Amino acid sequence: MKNRKGFTLWLTGLSGAGKTTLAALLATELRARGVNVEVLDGDEFRTNLSKGLGFSKEDRDTNIRRIGYVCRLLSRNGVGTVSAAISPYRSVRDEVRRAIEREDVEFIEVFVKCPIAVLAERDVKGLYKEALAGRLKGFTGVSDPYEEPLAPDVIVETDRETVESSSSIIIRELEQRGLIPEVDLSRPRIVSSGFSRRWRSAAKSSRRVTAAGGGSSLTILKRLFLNKPIRKR
Amino acid sequence: MKNRKGFTLWLTGLSGAGKTTLAALLATELRARGVNVEVLDGDEFRTNLSKGLGFSKEDRDTNIRRIGYVCRLLSRNGVGTVSAAISPYRSVRDEVRRAIEREDVEFIEVFVKCPIAVLAERDVKGLYKEALAGRLKGFTGVSDPYEEPLAPDVIVETDRETVESSSSIIIRELEQRGLIPEVDLSRPRIVSSGFSRRWRSAAKSSRRVTAAGGGSSLTILKRLFLNKPIRKR
Repeated sequence: MKNRKGFTLWLTGLSGAGKTTLAALLATELRARGVNVEVLDGDEFRTNLSKGLGFSKEDRDTNIRRIGYVCRLLSRNGVGTVSAAISPYRSVRDEVRRAIEREDVEFIEVFVKCPIAVLAERDVKGLYKEALAGRLKGFTGVSDPYEEPLAPDVIVETDRETVESSSSIIIRELEQRGLIPEVDLSRPRIVSSGFSRRWRSAAKSSRRVTAAGGGSSLTILKRLFLNKPIRKR
Repeated sequence: MKNRKGFTLWLTGLSGAGKTTLAALLATELRARGVNVEVLDGDEFRTNLSKGLGFSKEDRDTNIRRIGYVCRLLSRNGVGTVSAAISPYRSVRDEVRRAIEREDVEFIEVFVKCPIAVLAERDVKGLYKEALAGRLKGFTGVSDPYEEPLAPDVIVETDRETVESSSSIIIRELEQRGLIPEVDLSRPRIVSSGFSRRWRSAAKSSRRVTAAGGGSSLTILKRLFLNKPIRKR
């Protein structure tokens, strides 16, 4: 495979939605097809290139611009670059898209979608509980904005799909755009499909939340997770 | 040319020594040979990825670590990466070298050498005069340290060589390491050698400085450039 073009796969979604897990599986699958891949994980990037930046809108925007800059350098040199950062603000995501498309490189925005109720149930890092209790300021989706993509190129729903399904949907998109070689299905696959790793599923609790009666989803969540009445403000 | 390995060409030297000019010529020459190249210019990098960092040792080290990180991502994906940052501290240059060599990628340290007297005469950005007058704190080589490489892979002397000669010396090193294709000299060259762009030469003033009598070179420079007696401290 020579002179194949790079691309930027831009995963956006709330904390815990599955961006890092998905990026890792995508990288494995793409490398198995001979594609050069770099994953820029939001958390890791903050350590390496954005230490000292906080979580104000300005600092978040700066962080995303930096990730976008590195994606641009890599993908214009033929590397398949996967960004796995929350990237809550639409305008900066669009700004990064424009900068990358100006290099004649494809930018594929993937909305890694999961209802906040499920995320709070998963609560991988124990942060949703803190945020819902009002003890964590600036937490995306609870005490800080998350602007959903208006027209993402791909949507994966991690509360309904297996990790493999979500990955396949994205891989298929890359194939259809001619950005990666298609796999000859008559030959043995490298990524096993015998086992399906499930996203840490919380479908049941999701249903429970839906059934919990009126009020905004945040109010319901607070009622469920904090086990105490919510004061009206 | 397929699957050729990337490399990191690390130019280090004082401000005004010619790193940016040399990096630009190297990029042109390398691209003409079909090599993917990215130049990470120190000043430009500060705008894109290190805004807010100052010039303390800690901030300088952080900046260099970041450049090193991006060099590593690029060069391990087959890109020829050229860093053109002062990078005054030996320990961080060595740290970056180790991180890159750990990826099985070659790191070539190039000392872009020029006597401070010549740099002060060139004074491209008008900063040496300010620094020598004591009005600019933290200026590398005058009011802040510059640790020369102890065992650079290549030395170019920009007060004695043309830009093309310096570039050729480095290109030759890359050829000998098998990192870039050798050029068939029977075919016309893309980089013209008819004209030799000279480094902004200050050989005469350099001689004048040497002849100016005793004292450290900084003292002599101050005497020459400030046209006033230097107070003993």
